Amino acid sequence: MLRRLLSLETVGVVVNEHNKLRINLRENSYDIIIEHGLLASLGTLISQKFVKPKTFIVTDNNISGHWLKQTIESLSAQGISPKVLEVPVGESTKSFINLEKIIDQLLESKVDRNSLLIALGGGVIGDLAGFAGAVTLRGIQVVQVPTTLLSQVDSSVGGKTGINVRQGKNLVGSFYQPSMVAIDTQVLETLPSRQLFAGYAEVVKYGLIKDCSFFDWLELNGKKVLEGDKLAQQFAIFTSCRIKSEIVEADEKEQDLRAILNFGHTFGHALEAEAGYDGNLLHGEAVSIGMVMAIELSKNLGYLSGQDAGRAIKYIRKIGLPTNIKTIKGSTLWHPDGLMQHMQHDKKVSNGQLRFVLLKGIGEAFLTADVEKKEVYSIIEKSLSGDL
Amino acid sequence: MLRRLLSLETVGVVVNEHNKLRINLRENSYDIIIEHGLLASLGTLISQKFVKPKTFIVTDNNISGHWLKQTIESLSAQGISPKVLEVPVGESTKSFINLEKIIDQLLESKVDRNSLLIALGGGVIGDLAGFAGAVTLRGIQVVQVPTTLLSQVDSSVGGKTGINVRQGKNLVGSFYQPSMVAIDTQVLETLPSRQLFAGYAEVVKYGLIKDCSFFDWLELNGKKVLEGDKLAQQFAIFTSCRIKSEIVEADEKEQDLRAILNFGHTFGHALEAEAGYDGNLLHGEAVSIGMVMAIELSKNLGYLSGQDAGRAIKYIRKIGLPTNIKTIKGSTLWHPDGLMQHMQHDKKVSNGQLRFVLLKGIGEAFLTADVEKKEVYSIIEKSLSGDL
Repeated sequence: MLRRLLSLETVGVVVNEHNKLRINLRENSYDIIIEHGLLASLGTLISQKFVKPKTFIVTDNNISGHWLKQTIESLSAQGISPKVLEVPVGESTKSFINLEKIIDQLLESKVDRNSLLIALGGGVIGDLAGFAGAVTLRGIQVVQVPTTLLSQVDSSVGGKTGINVRQGKNLVGSFYQPSMVAIDTQVLETLPSRQLFAGYAEVVKYGLIKDCSFFDWLELNGKKVLEGDKLAQQFAIFTSCRIKSEIVEADEKEQDLRAILNFGHTFGHALEAEAGYDGNLLHGEAVSIGMVMAIELSKNLGYLSGQDAGRAIKYIRKIGLPTNIKTIKGSTLWHPDGLMQHMQHDKKVSNGQLRFVLLKGIGEAFLTADVEKKEVYSIIEKSLSGDL
Repeated sequence: MLRRLLSLETVGVVVNEHNKLRINLRENSYDIIIEHGLLASLGTLISQKFVKPKTFIVTDNNISGHWLKQTIESLSAQGISPKVLEVPVGESTKSFINLEKIIDQLLESKVDRNSLLIALGGGVIGDLAGFAGAVTLRGIQVVQVPTTLLSQVDSSVGGKTGINVRQGKNLVGSFYQPSMVAIDTQVLETLPSRQLFAGYAEVVKYGLIKDCSFFDWLELNGKKVLEGDKLAQQFAIFTSCRIKSEIVEADEKEQDLRAILNFGHTFGHALEAEAGYDGNLLHGEAVSIGMVMAIELSKNLGYLSGQDAGRAIKYIRKIGLPTNIKTIKGSTLWHPDGLMQHMQHDKKVSNGQLRFVLLKGIGEAFLTADVEKKEVYSIIEKSLSGDL
C-alpha cells in the first residue's frame, strides 16, 4: 500500500480507483464520489440515481456567489429545476429558527418522500440542511455537496447532522445518512487559504489515529494538497473518507470505537468554547492545537514515544498549522481553570468522567478515561504559554 | 392458535406468555412489557435494565393528576429521582415550541447520553417526548409508558415520533426506537370511555388487515376489552402489538408493506383535517369511519366479498364505533370536494397519486394506487349521507 501511495508523488499516477467510495451501512449505504470538476456533472449523477425528484438546494450566500449557478445549470440540463433556499453564512445559522424556516419552506413547496435536498456548502450547511432533511416527513433524501476541505473529509461520512443551542454546539441533531456525497475538489479554489489549512488539520488527524502509511504520505505530499494539486487532493480526501468510513461502519451510533475520531477534539472544543465561536478560531485550528496537546499528553503518560510525539508535532508545525493556544487571538486573558470547566461540559463526558483519545503510536489511537486532572491541567498551562 | 385464543373466553386462562413482546430491529431491538399494575414495578424494571440513569419524565397535566405520583414512587424506591417536565394536554402541544422547551430543560439539567427519558402519557406525549429524545444529543434513551389504549396498541411499536406544523400533523419527526415500552393496563381505568372506544378502533384494524383469527376473537371478546377485563385487555394489546411488530420488523422505514397499517387512515386523516383537530373527532373515531369507507370501497371494486364486508361493518357498528361521517358533529356542512382535497395532501401520496389500503378478505390487506377518483367520491357521498 505504502509503495503505491508514494508512487503518486513520483509518477503522478491517475488514481481513478480513488474517486468512489462505498459506505456500507446496510439499508443506509451510500457512495462518496470525488472528482475535480464534479459539479458540472452533478445533474447526470443525480438523474442516474433518482427518478426525477422534486429537488431543493440549501446553500449559504457565500457559496451561492461561487458555485450555485453551475450547480443549477448542471441539474437543469437533466430536466431538474431545483428550488433554492439560501441561509446566511456562519455558525450562528445552525439554529432552531433556521431549521424551522427550511422545513417550513420545504413543506410549503409540497416536498414529498421522494424529494431530494442538496446541501451545497460547508459544515454549517451540511449539518443544518442534513438535519432538516432528516426530520422533514421523518426523512427525505439528502445529497451532500461539501464545499470546504473540512466538510469534505469530516462531515461527508458518519451521518451526523445538527444545530447549536444556547448550551452548546451540535447538542441537537440526528444520525442520518445521505443518499450520496458528491465532492468536487475544484470548489476548493475559492476556499480562503486559512480555511483550507484548518480543514487539513482533520486530514492529518486521520493519519495520526489510524494509518501511519497515510501520515508518511502526508509528510511527503501534504504541501501539494494545500497548493491545489488535483490528484493529491483527491487522494487525501479519498483516504480520509476511507479511514473515517472504516471507523463509522464498525460503530454507526458512536459507542467507543468511533470516539477516536475525536482525537484533538476534547481540547479543541474547549478552546472553541473559550474563544466564543466569534470566527477568531476555526474548528480545524482548534483541532490542530488540540491534537498537539493530546500528543503531548500521550507522551507524558508514557503511551507514546518521545520520537513519535516529536515527529507528529514537528510535522503539524512545519505544514503551517497552529500548535499552541498562545497563537489564538485574545488567549492571553485565558486561564487553565476556564478551559478545564469547558471540558467538563463536553457531550462525550460519560457519568462526569473526562475521556481522552490518546496515541500509542502514529496511526494508533485509543480511548481512555484514566487521565488525572493535574496532567490535563499541566498540558493546558504549557500550551497557553506557547511551549508546544 | 384460534382454539387457544377462544379458550381465554371460556376458562380465563392466565396468559403469562402474553406479557412480553420482543421487537427485533437489530441494534434497535427492545421489549414491550404488558401488565395490569405495571407502573408500581416500573422502577424495578428500569433499574434492571439501566445503570442508575439520570431520569426525566415528560407527561401532561392530565396524566400527572392520575399516575405521576405512583410512577415517581416506584422510581424513588430504586434510588432514581426523576425530574418531571409537564406540558399541557392536547394535540396542539405537539409543536416546535414545546419541542424546544423540553430539549432546553433536558440540556439545562445536564442530560447525558446515558440519561433516560420516560414518556408518560398518550400519543401526544409519546410523539413529542420521543422526538425530543431522538434529537437531544442525537439520541438519548427513551422509555415509552403509553397511557391510552390507542397509544398502547399503536405508537408503542414502530418508533414514529414527531410534531405538527401549520402544514399538517406529524410532518416533522424521526423514526426512533425506544429502549423499552411499559404498558400498564390499569391506567385505562382513568381513561374516558370515549377514548377507550376510539383506541379500540385500532385494535379492530389489526384483525382486519392481518389476522382473521384475532378478528374472530374480538367478535367474541371485544366487549370484555372495553369493559376492563384485565386478561382480555392484555391479550388484545399484546396481539395488536405483535401484529404491528411483524409488519414493522419487515419494513422499519415505511416502504410499501408498512403502509397497510394505514388501513382506514387515508379517509380518516381527511376527516380529521376537515374537522379541524378541535377535539370533536378523535383519531380512532376517524379511523373507524375511514375503515368502514375502505371496506365499502374494497367491496365496490370487487376485491372483498359482500359477506366479509357486511361482517366487518356490522361488527364495527355493533361494538359501538362510528361508521359514517354523518355521526361527526358539524359534518352537515361538509362537501365531498373538501375531503378529496385533503386526501391529495396526505403524506403517503406518492407522485401525486392517491394510494389506498384495501381488503381482499378479513385479515388480508393490500396497498393499491389503482383506484379511480369517482369511486372514492361516491364512497364519501355515501358516508356523508349516513348510509354506511
